[in-house]
Order: sequence, then C-alpha cells, then structure tokens
Amino acid sequence: MRRSLLAVTLASLVALPALAGEAQHTPTPKELLAQSKPQEWRTPDPANLLDMKLPQGHVLIELAPDFTPLHAANIRTMVREHYFDGLAIVRVQDNFVTQWDDPAADDEDKAHIKPLGSAKQTLPPEYTRAIDPKLEWTALPDGDVYAPQVGFSEGFPAARDPAIGREWLTHCYGAVGVARDIDPQSGNGSALYAIIGQAPRGLDRNLAIAGRVIQGMELLSAMPRGPAPMGFYTDKKQRVTIESVRLAADLPPAQRPKIEVLRTDSATFAKLIEAKRNRRDAFYTVPAGKIDLCSISVPSREAR
Amino acid sequence: MRRSLLAVTLASLVALPALAGEAQHTPTPKELLAQSKPQEWRTPDPANLLDMKLPQGHVLIELAPDFTPLHAANIRTMVREHYFDGLAIVRVQDNFVTQWDDPAADDEDKAHIKPLGSAKQTLPPEYTRAIDPKLEWTALPDGDVYAPQVGFSEGFPAARDPAIGREWLTHCYGAVGVARDIDPQSGNGSALYAIIGQAPRGLDRNLAIAGRVIQGMELLSAMPRGPAPMGFYTDKKQRVTIESVRLAADLPPAQRPKIEVLRTDSATFAKLIEAKRNRRDAFYTVPAGKIDLCSISVPSREAR
Repeated sequence: MRRSLLAVTLASLVALPALAGEAQHTPTPKELLAQSKPQEWRTPDPANLLDMKLPQGHVLIELAPDFTPLHAANIRTMVREHYFDGLAIVRVQDNFVTQWDDPAADDEDKAHIKPLGSAKQTLPPEYTRAIDPKLEWTALPDGDVYAPQVGFSEGFPAARDPAIGREWLTHCYGAVGVARDIDPQSGNGSALYAIIGQAPRGLDRNLAIAGRVIQGMELLSAMPRGPAPMGFYTDKKQRVTIESVRLAADLPPAQRPKIEVLRTDSATFAKLIEAKRNRRDAFYTVPAGKIDLCSISVPSREAR
Repeated sequence: MRRSLLAVTLASLVALPALAGEAQHTPTPKELLAQSKPQEWRTPDPANLLDMKLPQGHVLIELAPDFTPLHAANIRTMVREHYFDGLAIVRVQDNFVTQWDDPAADDEDKAHIKPLGSAKQTLPPEYTRAIDPKLEWTALPDGDVYAPQVGFSEGFPAARDPAIGREWLTHCYGAVGVARDIDPQSGNGSALYAIIGQAPRGLDRNLAIAGRVIQGMELLSAMPRGPAPMGFYTDKKQRVTIESVRLAADLPPAQRPKIEVLRTDSATFAKLIEAKRNRRDAFYTVPAGKIDLCSISVPSREAR
C-alpha cells in the first residue's frame, strides 16, 4: 500500500488526481500525453539519428546540426566509415559523465589507435552560435542560475544571452558532448560523453554539444563507475565494447529506429511544463511554482 | 594524449595549472584540499552515521537531526532493532531515485510485512523548520530557481525563505528522503530513497529529508534501472538485499567507518566554491562565474 501509492505519487510523469474536488481535476502528465495530437510529435531526421548498439541494448542519439553543424557532419562521416564500431565505453564518472572513444588512446602503446579516415582531425569550437530568429525558441519562465534566458530550441535544452546575441545548447542530463584537449579546436567528435548526473552547467560554452540521447539513457547511466580517477576503467575487461553505430539514414527504412519526439513548441509540451511547475495532485502540499531547465525531459515514444 | 588530457581537464576536482603565466597560478581544488587544515574537517557524530552494507559494498549516510529530528530518532530505533537487515533495494528509476524498503510491501501477499518494532508508524512531516540563527548558514551568491536563498547548513545543502522564517534541506544528488503515502504524516523512515539524478527540487518542502549519502553513492546510482513503471523491479531476483544497517555509535570504535567531512563553514570550502564558480585552468574558455547549489559536492575523506 504505502509503497505502491508512493510509487505513483513520486513519479515524474504520473500523478494522482486530487482526492477532493473532483470537479477541479487537472490533467496529469500521463493524461496530457494521451491527449496529444499526432502533429505535436516529430520523427527525428534520419540524417541526425544515431543508433549506438551496445551489448546491453540500443542508445539513440539525435544530433543537433542547428548548433553544431561541423561536428554533426564529422560524426556522420565517422559513422559512415564505421569508425565507432569496436570502440568502447572507457570512463564512467559518478554524477558526471559516461564517455566513449578509442580505448587504444588510453593504452601505453599508441600503435593501435584507429585512424579517423575521411573525418577531420580538428574542428572550430561551435560552443555558441548567433541567435537565429528562424530557430524555435520556447522560453521558460523561472530564470536560471547560469544564463540570462533558458528554454528549448528545436527540441534541445538551450540558453541565450540576448545582450551578446548568442545561444547555445546546455549540459543537461543526456546531453552528448564532444571531448577535447586544451586546444578548443582539438575536438572532432571521435570521443563523446553523455551527462549522467546533476547538470554540469559550468561546461556550457566551453564544449561543443553534438546532440542528445533520446532513448537508452538508462544503459549509459547504470554502468559501473570506473575505479580510476575521473571514472576511467583500469581493467580493460571493464570497458563495454560498442558493437556498432549507424546513422538511421543509412539503414533501410524498415530497419530505422521507430521513435518520435514531442515537439518542444507544441501546446502539449507547454502544458507538461506547467504541470511540472505546479504539481496539483494530492501528494504535493506545496507546488514549487518553478521549474529549472534541466529538470524538464522531452518525451519520446515509439513511432506509430 | 587527447584522452588523458581530457580526463584531467574535465574532472570536477582536478584542474590543470594555466600553461601561460605560471606566476598567476590559482590553486586547483585538489591543491586546496591538500592545503586544508585538520580542524576544517569534522567526524560525523556516530549517533548520526549509518553504515548500510550491500553485497556491492558500504553506503554511509549521515542523518540530519537538526532538520528532521523525529525521523532521525525513528530511523535510529529501527536500525538498533535491525529492522533494515534483509530488506532490499526495490526500485531504481533513471535520473530520479534508488529506493529501499520492505519488499513484502510490494508483494500481493502482505502477510510477510516486517513489523516496525518500537518505531513509530507515523511522524509529523518535518518538511521545513524555523530558521535557527544558531545553525550554520553558508550562503551561496548566485541565486536559485526554486528558493529565495540557498546554501549549506551543518554540512547539508539547504534553502531558506526569510519572508516566512523557514529553512529546509534540498533534494540534491545524494539526499536521502523519507518515502510516504498521500497523508503527509504517513512517512516513518522505513522506506527511504536516494536522489541519483538531476536534483528534483520540486520535491523540496513536500518530503522529509532524513540525511545525505556521504560515501558509496556510486553503488546506489549504478544499479540497473527497474523495468516497471517508476523503476520498480519486476523480478524479485533483481532486488538487491540489504545485508545490514548499523549505527556507528552502536559499533565498537575500532569498527566504526573512518570518515571525515569537510566543514561547509570552512575557509577551504569557500575557496572550493569559488574555484568551481570560476574555473581558471587553461581548459576553460569561459568561466561560468556562477554555481548552483546542487552542483557543489561536499568533500569527504578517510579519517586520518
């Protein structure tokens, strides 16, 4: 009893209707999603959809070429040349990142580092971009510790500074960033990390965000943390081998991942945000009345 | 090269010195900790220190009786009567919580629910408390989306609303909360959860926070996510059995966990916050100049 009730009430997407005043029933997030219209969902562009196959299952990543076009292009090139096949998860640092790249880069003997093929070795940083009024901008109302404005752009959590006319993707849970060296031009997309803990927003504007995990985060977040400093695996056997990474566009349509993402400029998404700002189910004694950017997850579902 | 450099520069507690201008070297977090004074560290009161033994290892939890005294007392009673021994991790919901309690509460047959013994079945909520000027308050300078003021009190991340004279602990990563039913008085500490993802601050002031994990979070956060709604395990074999929970005060001194926590009112903690607000190592092109409450972790170390 206690447990099953709690389970319902603590859930982020399920809320109990108010026990008193049924006439004032406010739709729950689950009900809002059930009432959504087909046109409020979008199918990610197959040219931006990566399917990473791990022994545990599939991780789907949507690239964000509106913000990091050169990185998206370079990653596409590497994927098409099967660069990532056989690479590995080499690092899982608790409350921070899961990182994958060429494990040979970690070995003392560098002789077996995989060549990048046709992909570029270095890229311009792409940490921020000029605000483009043609891109969707769904602003959030409650402010932010780090940026003058936060919201969603083309499905991705993002921030803006109108004073300098720049916008950028933010390091929320599930963000996929481009690892690099000290030199800001040293990232190329061959080493990537996903955020698995409290959003490390201090990284914003210091690293290129190539995209976002839209399915399979629980595979990346539940991996054993590495014992070495910064979560590196010390034993090669701890590394999880990447079986393959494919671009949906390169797969026959029937084999493409069947996934839809709720549009962040849809009425249903706006209602979900409001429902999360003010939880009205009976469990809550004090609705927060606020929501921070990285506490909002963008719903996805199997395509119909 | 790329990887090892990245490893250093992306770490939260290790930063490279600036390559240019060595004269302006700013101490890194690691150096700050190395320079800390013994009196800046505290040994948690053994009456507030729980040692939860799982098959994977030990999780240490510090209770917060300054904020939730009745819950601390009830949990101590249950621990002393070995209530938690043999209970289990029953739920792991990605980017949200790992929860443990009596797995029999989940079974259809409720005949085997473990009695609470001398512990109370219900407790007053203890969601907030009157601001007490005698308690430590180390304010943060950068604001907060949810509360008028945030900072640290007696080692715990906390929030305040001076307008109503109340303060409360916050649902940051590692917070240990008291599960309950709809009735705010229904929590008793027999079912607990730890936050394993982005801080769900909307829960603040709606649940009692009994304490904080000060060691072993990576055991709770890396468990496989449950397949049922809200992360419940469907197969009993997925549940992780709690071997025992002991109060350090009940153990012979030689067997108590040897742990120290950096005082949140210490000069070193203040310097760490500033170092995190403004990363000055060469990796960062734009220091954030800001830090949000739940992005600050309180360092702990093996007692010397």
